Amino acid sequence: MIPTSDVGKRAYDLDRAYVFHSWSAQAALDPMVIAGGSGTRVWDHDGNEYLDFSSQLVNVNIGHQHSAVRDAIKAQADVLTTVAPAHANLARGEAARRILDRAGEGFSKVFFTNGGADANENAIRMARLYTGRDKVLSMYRSYHGNTGAAVVATGDWRRVPNEYARGHVHFFGPFSYRSEFWSDSPQQESERALHHLRRVIQSEGAASIAAILIETIPGTAGVLVPPPGYLAGVRALADEFGIVLIFDEVMAGFGRTGDWFAFQSLPDSSGEITVPDLITFAKGVNSGYVPVGGVIISPAIAAAFDETVFPGGLTYSGHPLAMASIVGALDAMESEGIVANAKRVGADVIGPGLRALQAKHPSIIGEVRGLGVFWALDLVADSETREPVSPSVIGALKKTLLSLGLLPFFADNRLHVVPPCVVTDDEVARALDLYDQAFSSL
Amino acid sequence: MIPTSDVGKRAYDLDRAYVFHSWSAQAALDPMVIAGGSGTRVWDHDGNEYLDFSSQLVNVNIGHQHSAVRDAIKAQADVLTTVAPAHANLARGEAARRILDRAGEGFSKVFFTNGGADANENAIRMARLYTGRDKVLSMYRSYHGNTGAAVVATGDWRRVPNEYARGHVHFFGPFSYRSEFWSDSPQQESERALHHLRRVIQSEGAASIAAILIETIPGTAGVLVPPPGYLAGVRALADEFGIVLIFDEVMAGFGRTGDWFAFQSLPDSSGEITVPDLITFAKGVNSGYVPVGGVIISPAIAAAFDETVFPGGLTYSGHPLAMASIVGALDAMESEGIVANAKRVGADVIGPGLRALQAKHPSIIGEVRGLGVFWALDLVADSETREPVSPSVIGALKKTLLSLGLLPFFADNRLHVVPPCVVTDDEVARALDLYDQAFSSL
Repeated sequence: MIPTSDVGKRAYDLDRAYVFHSWSAQAALDPMVIAGGSGTRVWDHDGNEYLDFSSQLVNVNIGHQHSAVRDAIKAQADVLTTVAPAHANLARGEAARRILDRAGEGFSKVFFTNGGADANENAIRMARLYTGRDKVLSMYRSYHGNTGAAVVATGDWRRVPNEYARGHVHFFGPFSYRSEFWSDSPQQESERALHHLRRVIQSEGAASIAAILIETIPGTAGVLVPPPGYLAGVRALADEFGIVLIFDEVMAGFGRTGDWFAFQSLPDSSGEITVPDLITFAKGVNSGYVPVGGVIISPAIAAAFDETVFPGGLTYSGHPLAMASIVGALDAMESEGIVANAKRVGADVIGPGLRALQAKHPSIIGEVRGLGVFWALDLVADSETREPVSPSVIGALKKTLLSLGLLPFFADNRLHVVPPCVVTDDEVARALDLYDQAFSSL
Repeated sequence: MIPTSDVGKRAYDLDRAYVFHSWSAQAALDPMVIAGGSGTRVWDHDGNEYLDFSSQLVNVNIGHQHSAVRDAIKAQADVLTTVAPAHANLARGEAARRILDRAGEGFSKVFFTNGGADANENAIRMARLYTGRDKVLSMYRSYHGNTGAAVVATGDWRRVPNEYARGHVHFFGPFSYRSEFWSDSPQQESERALHHLRRVIQSEGAASIAAILIETIPGTAGVLVPPPGYLAGVRALADEFGIVLIFDEVMAGFGRTGDWFAFQSLPDSSGEITVPDLITFAKGVNSGYVPVGGVIISPAIAAAFDETVFPGGLTYSGHPLAMASIVGALDAMESEGIVANAKRVGADVIGPGLRALQAKHPSIIGEVRGLGVFWALDLVADSETREPVSPSVIGALKKTLLSLGLLPFFADNRLHVVPPCVVTDDEVARALDLYDQAFSSL
């Protein structure tokens, strides 16, 4: 997408000349230049505007350029941008307090990192030192970050060239539409997935397992909302075997599911929620306006490091600019009802709209999954066999949607519908129409 | 240091209640609250001001709250704070170009990360995939970050509870004052350290070694300026055995040594500098005003990923707010002669001043090492045996210096003298006087 304007061309040319890109072969890249944004819209330097139904990397929960977050960053920039983590600063305490308020019972401290990957690194570290055990169990269908342990905890293809960490074991999570357990109902999928996890724990040796690390709702793997009873069953297994339970809420947390945390969106039939021992977060906590992540810690695990040195840290832990952006984002999300909007728009507009789209295009939309502003369409070449569509179909859909003015999020054979939490009913209606046009054009 | 003002107390109490700290046992922490700063000064909420000779974690190279960086952050905050790394944006290209301009011949692309740890993670990844080999050699006296591979590449005590990555081997670097090689001159130390490294390479199997990862000047380990010929000798060994040479310039880079990079400060006797294949950076590139780091890549290694997918990435790679802060910082450092100031003040003021201090306190200051604004005093209990001073002496010195209004940086038995690059002659004179008072008070 070579830009036409001078400034757009300059941005494009500098990028192609000097910038090495994530997860890519470099030669054939043809990046879109993004110049600015507001709410659910982004634009380039050439006068093109797009409806952002990607939230970039599913992080801009509060929308682009929210004035409260922007102003909090600018105000902090006038006072103090950076400070060593050993020193206290007001913004850090205020951010930690707001995060703990939202996490609810069961958590007492926050350790701040630079993003989701090192949040998972440090959660794994805490679990190992707390239990005195080595192994970390995580799902094949997962993504936990790109650093040493986080990328090996990751289950997908990105782990394979990076397997230089020891102590990681993978298991299959529940996924009714593409079951690994020959199940024929969500209830059976849940029971069999728990049986499988129990068998992996027993076979690995329960006493060797420090942590079970799962995305509360696996995100990039396909918005795999766990079936009823699964999270509670994992919690029960963790308790039975003395294993630390870590929920990775880097993508699912801070509004995406319509609650502050995804685990709060998934109560069991009696209304009980399943609470982990550690929560990792990044993205939505400040919508990525400043790089930040962290670990929310239970009192028992925090206390284990009262007298014992915690052997982890980083220069930018609790960075004031990042902290101020968290305070700004969380206060605005609360006062403006942004999380509640995500819940309502998901239940009343996106969900019904995507199901109607599926009814109109049943041969390609195999399944609609999600809640809040966190949805996936599982696209199939054959609705009976559920064979995924080919990459060429995904490529064609992406091209069409961009040409129609919508910035989509694709992963493997799926279209993820992941707008900011501030998305309006009208914007959803427009996106649904554009999706419809794109599927119709195939 | 419990504050007296209401806002100071609030910052302190929130920190103690809710914030989990790096590299610490949590119960006994008594953090100083820092409220703001300017140049080489920081202050709390209670009216106390300190001369910052720590640069926080040796990152505030441009000084606190430099207007050019602050304004660049605020201007970018008004336009676009965050964008997915797959998209191009102008600030990212401008930042990459400025970094490559300063690195000089031998580099063609920049991969941006969130900090120094994941910069090292990704440099290690590039080296392994480029060579098809596994092992990474690094020094016992080193620190490379807190994530999976970076912390195991680290040589110091912080590695030991975290050894969950494979493929790491450690060797001893040169350190004339505390030689591992029974040398009696810097020249002999250099030769013997190179012989030792050759023997480690041969014994590990050269064909199994992907990378030699070294801090150009090991920083937290004691500002261990390599003796003449060492860096060139390591480069020659890397070339002889087909090993990628990575210089970790996270602490040493971007002005600290009085040049843009530390390797540029250490030419051999014929004036030639030793150029690595990959440079990792963070801290000084934007003085930590926004969390950022990265890898500067040689054309050969960059080209290896032209047609092959690079299996690494992160949500905030090339984050616009971080990129704008880099552009602001590097332009201001150049136009205001800030790097040149670090060189001059180091050679003309700090070096002579610290040597005079040593002459006055020869029984405790065992050695003065450094250049630019990157110095260490090696403190000894016995100047003959060079036995390090006890932690209680360090504690007393720290307490005295804080009470005198200087924020010091201590590591093990050393006082590191690491002010911002903007430090003035008068500020150095004042610090030297305070150091003198502290040593005299023992």
